[in-house]
Amino acid sequence: MAEKVFRDPVHDFITVEDDLLLALIDTPEFQRLRRIRQLGASYGTYHGAEHSRFSHAIGVLHVMQRVLKRFRDLGLTPEPVDRLAALAAALLHDLGHGPFSHLWEHTCCAHLSHEAWTRRIILDGTGVNRVLRRHDPALPERVLAVLDGTHPVRYLSSLVSGQLDVDRMDYLLRDALYTGATYGRFDLERLIYTMAVAGEQVVVSRKGLANVEEYLLARYFMYWQVYFHKTTRAQEVLFRRLLERVRDLTLDRGPEAAPVPPALRPFLAGAPGLGDLLAVDDVDVLHAVKIWTAAADQVLRDLAGRFLNRRLLKPVFADPVDDAPPDAVEAVRELVGRRGWDARYYFAIDRASDVAYDYYVRHPDGAAGGAVKGAGRKAPVPILIVEKDGLMREVSEVSPLIRALAAGPRTGLNLFVPEDCRDEARSLLVSGGAATC
Amino acid sequence: MAEKVFRDPVHDFITVEDDLLLALIDTPEFQRLRRIRQLGASYGTYHGAEHSRFSHAIGVLHVMQRVLKRFRDLGLTPEPVDRLAALAAALLHDLGHGPFSHLWEHTCCAHLSHEAWTRRIILDGTGVNRVLRRHDPALPERVLAVLDGTHPVRYLSSLVSGQLDVDRMDYLLRDALYTGATYGRFDLERLIYTMAVAGEQVVVSRKGLANVEEYLLARYFMYWQVYFHKTTRAQEVLFRRLLERVRDLTLDRGPEAAPVPPALRPFLAGAPGLGDLLAVDDVDVLHAVKIWTAAADQVLRDLAGRFLNRRLLKPVFADPVDDAPPDAVEAVRELVGRRGWDARYYFAIDRASDVAYDYYVRHPDGAAGGAVKGAGRKAPVPILIVEKDGLMREVSEVSPLIRALAAGPRTGLNLFVPEDCRDEARSLLVSGGAATC
Amino acid sequence: MAEKVFRDPVHDFITVEDDLLLALIDTPEFQRLRRIRQLGASYGTYHGAEHSRFSHAIGVLHVMQRVLKRFRDLGLTPEPVDRLAALAAALLHDLGHGPFSHLWEHTCCAHLSHEAWTRRIILDGTGVNRVLRRHDPALPERVLAVLDGTHPVRYLSSLVSGQLDVDRMDYLLRDALYTGATYGRFDLERLIYTMAVAGEQVVVSRKGLANVEEYLLARYFMYWQVYFHKTTRAQEVLFRRLLERVRDLTLDRGPEAAPVPPALRPFLAGAPGLGDLLAVDDVDVLHAVKIWTAAADQVLRDLAGRFLNRRLLKPVFADPVDDAPPDAVEAVRELVGRRGWDARYYFAIDRASDVAYDYYVRHPDGAAGGAVKGAGRKAPVPILIVEKDGLMREVSEVSPLIRALAAGPRTGLNLFVPEDCRDEARSLLVSGGAATC
Amino acid sequence: MAEKVFRDPVHDFITVEDDLLLALIDTPEFQRLRRIRQLGASYGTYHGAEHSRFSHAIGVLHVMQRVLKRFRDLGLTPEPVDRLAALAAALLHDLGHGPFSHLWEHTCCAHLSHEAWTRRIILDGTGVNRVLRRHDPALPERVLAVLDGTHPVRYLSSLVSGQLDVDRMDYLLRDALYTGATYGRFDLERLIYTMAVAGEQVVVSRKGLANVEEYLLARYFMYWQVYFHKTTRAQEVLFRRLLERVRDLTLDRGPEAAPVPPALRPFLAGAPGLGDLLAVDDVDVLHAVKIWTAAADQVLRDLAGRFLNRRLLKPVFADPVDDAPPDAVEAVRELVGRRGWDARYYFAIDRASDVAYDYYVRHPDGAAGGAVKGAGRKAPVPILIVEKDGLMREVSEVSPLIRALAAGPRTGLNLFVPEDCRDEARSLLVSGGAATC
Repeated sequence: MAEKVFRDPVHDFITVEDDLLLALIDTPEFQRLRRIRQLGASYGTYHGAEHSRFSHAIGVLHVMQRVLKRFRDLGLTPEPVDRLAALAAALLHDLGHGPFSHLWEHTCCAHLSHEAWTRRIILDGTGVNRVLRRHDPALPERVLAVLDGTHPVRYLSSLVSGQLDVDRMDYLLRDALYTGATYGRFDLERLIYTMAVAGEQVVVSRKGLANVEEYLLARYFMYWQVYFHKTTRAQEVLFRRLLERVRDLTLDRGPEAAPVPPALRPFLAGAPGLGDLLAVDDVDVLHAVKIWTAAADQVLRDLAGRFLNRRLLKPVFADPVDDAPPDAVEAVRELVGRRGWDARYYFAIDRASDVAYDYYVRHPDGAAGGAVKGAGRKAPVPILIVEKDGLMREVSEVSPLIRALAAGPRTGLNLFVPEDCRDEARSLLVSGGAATC
Repeated sequence: MAEKVFRDPVHDFITVEDDLLLALIDTPEFQRLRRIRQLGASYGTYHGAEHSRFSHAIGVLHVMQRVLKRFRDLGLTPEPVDRLAALAAALLHDLGHGPFSHLWEHTCCAHLSHEAWTRRIILDGTGVNRVLRRHDPALPERVLAVLDGTHPVRYLSSLVSGQLDVDRMDYLLRDALYTGATYGRFDLERLIYTMAVAGEQVVVSRKGLANVEEYLLARYFMYWQVYFHKTTRAQEVLFRRLLERVRDLTLDRGPEAAPVPPALRPFLAGAPGLGDLLAVDDVDVLHAVKIWTAAADQVLRDLAGRFLNRRLLKPVFADPVDDAPPDAVEAVRELVGRRGWDARYYFAIDRASDVAYDYYVRHPDGAAGGAVKGAGRKAPVPILIVEKDGLMREVSEVSPLIRALAAGPRTGLNLFVPEDCRDEARSLLVSGGAATC
Repeated sequence: MAEKVFRDPVHDFITVEDDLLLALIDTPEFQRLRRIRQLGASYGTYHGAEHSRFSHAIGVLHVMQRVLKRFRDLGLTPEPVDRLAALAAALLHDLGHGPFSHLWEHTCCAHLSHEAWTRRIILDGTGVNRVLRRHDPALPERVLAVLDGTHPVRYLSSLVSGQLDVDRMDYLLRDALYTGATYGRFDLERLIYTMAVAGEQVVVSRKGLANVEEYLLARYFMYWQVYFHKTTRAQEVLFRRLLERVRDLTLDRGPEAAPVPPALRPFLAGAPGLGDLLAVDDVDVLHAVKIWTAAADQVLRDLAGRFLNRRLLKPVFADPVDDAPPDAVEAVRELVGRRGWDARYYFAIDRASDVAYDYYVRHPDGAAGGAVKGAGRKAPVPILIVEKDGLMREVSEVSPLIRALAAGPRTGLNLFVPEDCRDEARSLLVSGGAATC
Repeated sequence: MAEKVFRDPVHDFITVEDDLLLALIDTPEFQRLRRIRQLGASYGTYHGAEHSRFSHAIGVLHVMQRVLKRFRDLGLTPEPVDRLAALAAALLHDLGHGPFSHLWEHTCCAHLSHEAWTRRIILDGTGVNRVLRRHDPALPERVLAVLDGTHPVRYLSSLVSGQLDVDRMDYLLRDALYTGATYGRFDLERLIYTMAVAGEQVVVSRKGLANVEEYLLARYFMYWQVYFHKTTRAQEVLFRRLLERVRDLTLDRGPEAAPVPPALRPFLAGAPGLGDLLAVDDVDVLHAVKIWTAAADQVLRDLAGRFLNRRLLKPVFADPVDDAPPDAVEAVRELVGRRGWDARYYFAIDRASDVAYDYYVRHPDGAAGGAVKGAGRKAPVPILIVEKDGLMREVSEVSPLIRALAAGPRTGLNLFVPEDCRDEARSLLVSGGAATC
């Protein structure tokens, strides 16, 4: 037994004992995650948030190990092969991410969701696939079944993607630590301690209600304070516009119009294959951006310089508004053009619904469905609270706090414009009647 | 007054109030530090250690602000211009670092120490220089004087580079947090609280002795546990060998022998200028390494793949030894060659003295000298403890603990070889009489 | 200037610089607080919660110092005498507490609220009064004005007792640390950073909304999880019953019926004076309880033994219910009697509204009123959020989360009975129709 | 299986699963520890240090559980009965403490060491004894064997009292947290992770050397900074003098000379029995001190008032000296008398060797002996570091740091006098030649 210890800023001490897991960590596909930032361009807002998907994935494995250990103490032991499938699924769930994580998915370059790419990495002839198959030829499919929510041991799927999954448990704590935002903290040990399995569902005992509340509030705060931070959104807008400009240039005027490093080419034109995805990471994008700061095209050059040196577009509203009248929005777009900026690249409407994260939503009859991921959003397997007498209720029925939070509006809109347009844009919108949220 | 708040994982809340400092942070030269990892390749050992020089530099500024605030409470207020010079020096002290920080300095590519590059960035016509000059034409020289130890207000220089400087205070705490190693923790608030200035020297009052001990022990532990970690050293060895192979190839066989991206070329041949240094960062090196994994040259291809996917050379000793007889070392080198590896690239002697960090050394008459940096090492401005009656003594005279630590040997030697040579290499050395340390 | 440093588990480092404050800390009236537990009998539930009012009061002073320092950075500096009055008020606000803090106030022994006693300690000829008067003859009245909400500088009063006061800020963090409950944590530094004064009111800027939410949620969690914990309530019930039994015995049968140490006598019969209050603390009550474990009266003896060795009455419901039908409650009371227990002492109805703490309530027109304390509850000076344009709104208007929390029911009822009656009592209530909350 | 969770400020979450242990916790003898402060009168120096032996004992049980769990992972499982004996020994090891813990042992009142009392509590017919016997008639002796170092499974004894025992591991962390001193922190999880058993000895693997160093340094710092703090020592001196005065008064002039509450009487005259020890705790002493503040005897009255309201004797030296010439010490004693103070009570020589704690000492051939406690000191079962090849060496042979620390002087002397004598006393000593340490 090769026991290996990882020191971790969030969980302190992570012990991995299974040879299979250690072999998976050593594959090039997994090591690639070291070069993909967990929070995309958020480090421009929170300078400490420089952590990678690699760190997160190790953390997710750890939380899964902790939960299964707790379940074992409660007398629930999955078959060894199912246990391994669940641990591998936790470790590998993010393999398919592209450069800057979710940021990539929201650009013209993402041809598939990261979940779809992950599926291919596990099934096709990659290093990861070989390691899994060598252990057990059926293992790749089993891991996938856990990720897809089709695994016969249903609670294992819920642990990987439900409202109370090991993915969220790690990233909230990790993002909170690295950003320096304390909002995301919750009592992981206690939460795990109150979890159990009833039927085939992951549930939380009544004594853990406050812990679930604390966890859901952490999600709520991180959503509004960190993930939807206006400076982060501004940097993300710039990232998308930059890639759009490159695509538009090369589509219109051919490959010579902008220098595109080979690693990025398949994503700008044509259908990238699995090898293309595995070859690309943050390094390629940042390298390209550096090159683009000297591009012939003035718009591209300017956008690249802005991205690199953090001269962002500016939010028109200090805080996002509920909504803005189309006429006024249109007037702002025209203003941007009038000031000499190409509004295709220097104007953006940003909505809270574009954020790749979410917080708890109550799903009327969600208890039935499995955990199917898609479009970067997790399906709402609800959180169930179980009373001592076995009665199960969805958490927002039990907690007025969560009821309020789950019912609350998730709207939020902002506009981004060059700095010299901000003040006038604001006047246009206020007189145009944008509703403060 | 534009007050800006940075959330920081180490110091929580960093408030910057001076417009000058905010303008410096916004320069491209400073933003570039976001793309230079603080701990070089240590993230291969401690996955969390993905932080950049940017984060560190902001932290150093914060600690300098805290110390000056404490001194102000003690009635010591430098002239505004000197205060600003000191704060700017704290912020800018690492501007001259190349890719992967100290790692770069230890390769064939480093033509100047990072301190020498920093000096040029401050003096030549960069964005940083412009911002400083706009505030006060004499400011660049003043900032440099603080860094060089020639500033008339001597204690300001000591704060930037002495045995008790704001640089070390931040990096110990920061590296400890990000690596997950708790050894580097010490009580920053309390340490600052016991600092004072006597004559022109930074001193610590007797009641702070335990805090100085704690701080020096943090350095001691971090040195042996983190900075001199054998896996980190293995990754660093690979980094150097990789660049040496590229240099050797291109020197011998001309520029076509290996694909070298433009950003790296000036460093492999010729005399790089300031613009070359400012244009290069981790991104360029990682991008090159990715390209080299497909290089025609087999050695280069292999070294690049090893670096990227963490198939490192292996340390012959589990723990570093005091010394090894030259004959036995030579025998190991031959062994590596015999097994078919090119010993120029697949064999390395690693000494503790190569580490870019150090811990406290007592300097017999160090009190006299200013703080001159050089060769990546800081000169030993000693730490002075002041009694209530004003008597000053060097800390190792007062503390038996520090005396022991400062006297202790700093030797430590390891050899790195390919995995298939390790066992035999170990036998050769043990029979050859390597002394366990 | 005598600067003194207190090391504190919550705030780390507390520096007190004013001679007046140091002199107040040295008075016997303030030192007495070392012998009064902050959380009454909660240490029976959370063994770590053994902290005293002394620690809390030092912490409250610290928070007040931090807030005033922040206000000074914002350009708001009260007159020195007002500043001192506010700091003294923060330090002294709990002087009038009796043994076990709020527990005392809820017994037959409390003839006055602790606020009323505090008022007398400050005004009458105590050590505290002398220290204040020596500094400035008008100071006692000024301190009282801050506590009463009648001080001309209104925001100082709000800081001592409003919904966002330094008292709560300290006790939430302190109780969270000592109980080990993480729910009470919030980001104190950030919260203080977002506070300001508008008009004469303490407000929080819009950017601090999440911090206010976090703080109010901490209160909410601590209320339900710690302050209203059923084991704590059981211990408190026993405390009250014990003192009632002593009172009843001595009233009915004269002073010989139960051994009452001199320090407690004035509180069981007659009108205790200020000297009586200042002479009594936890020590006297615990000493009496120890004596009572050998009392002739069987009920007294049993109650004392139960209190000391934690054989508590048992809650009939695992979680508090909304309400219980009077008939069923009456049936339980009869059951207790039928089993041979004296229902006056062995049966208790406990309501959430009896808890000495509360959480945020929205007050329709609370903005008008000052901060008048009474009956252990603070009047609802609301929390105001100020937008950049100066518009002020009550926090629950801005935050749907707080709206939900403030609107939520605060009902909660439990019954306590001897262990041998619990099961039958539960059946009686369930069949009687107690509504689960 | 009754699983119970204790929330703990140090260890967060403590789960106790054995019915036996829960029953032991519920005994009156164990609950009594709630009324005995862990750090005696240290709360007068560090206001937060108000924690009890109860909290500590629960923590020690937890650490023992953690260590045994780690050993189980390493394949080492003691017999169930031995495991229980070890856990019970950890939980009960401090049962015999008197009021204010070690403070009591250093007064005229302590007729037996706390270890001797603990032995009697376990063997005689107490609640604890009954619970143990009910489980297994041989259990009391087995628990004692663990405590005495005579248990056949030798490593279990070492875990309870060796240089690396669960007692020290808890109290260092706990005292550090409650005092607010950060020096006592070390990485408990990592330390436990590197522990193992070789032969019958507890050892630490070479990779844990830094953790052992960190732990031993924590002890070193806590010793000099917290346990030997001059203000704490001043309070302890007063405590001893107070009890000596009462004893002297009642011995000389009979029981009427000073009001002594019944609980204390057996300890001032005659031979206290087990029941007497179990009946006395901090409450009785504090209650007596409060009464003595109104005693007829002027010296007693004054000492009591000083203790209660923290008007302490003053240390003559700011920092302890190595030694002081007997003549000068005698001169100080005379000075105190000349100023009208009774030198028997108002003068004290305090030595570091009186402190009830210690730090690591190297014992030349200590490896042989078992762990026999006595006189409040633990015998030096040394700490052994084991290399990969099985070679074991005492830690100070391996670590120059520990060698220095273990060799360092442990002398330290101070004198305590009334405030009005301090300055003159200092002159007498300085001219008399006291050596600064």
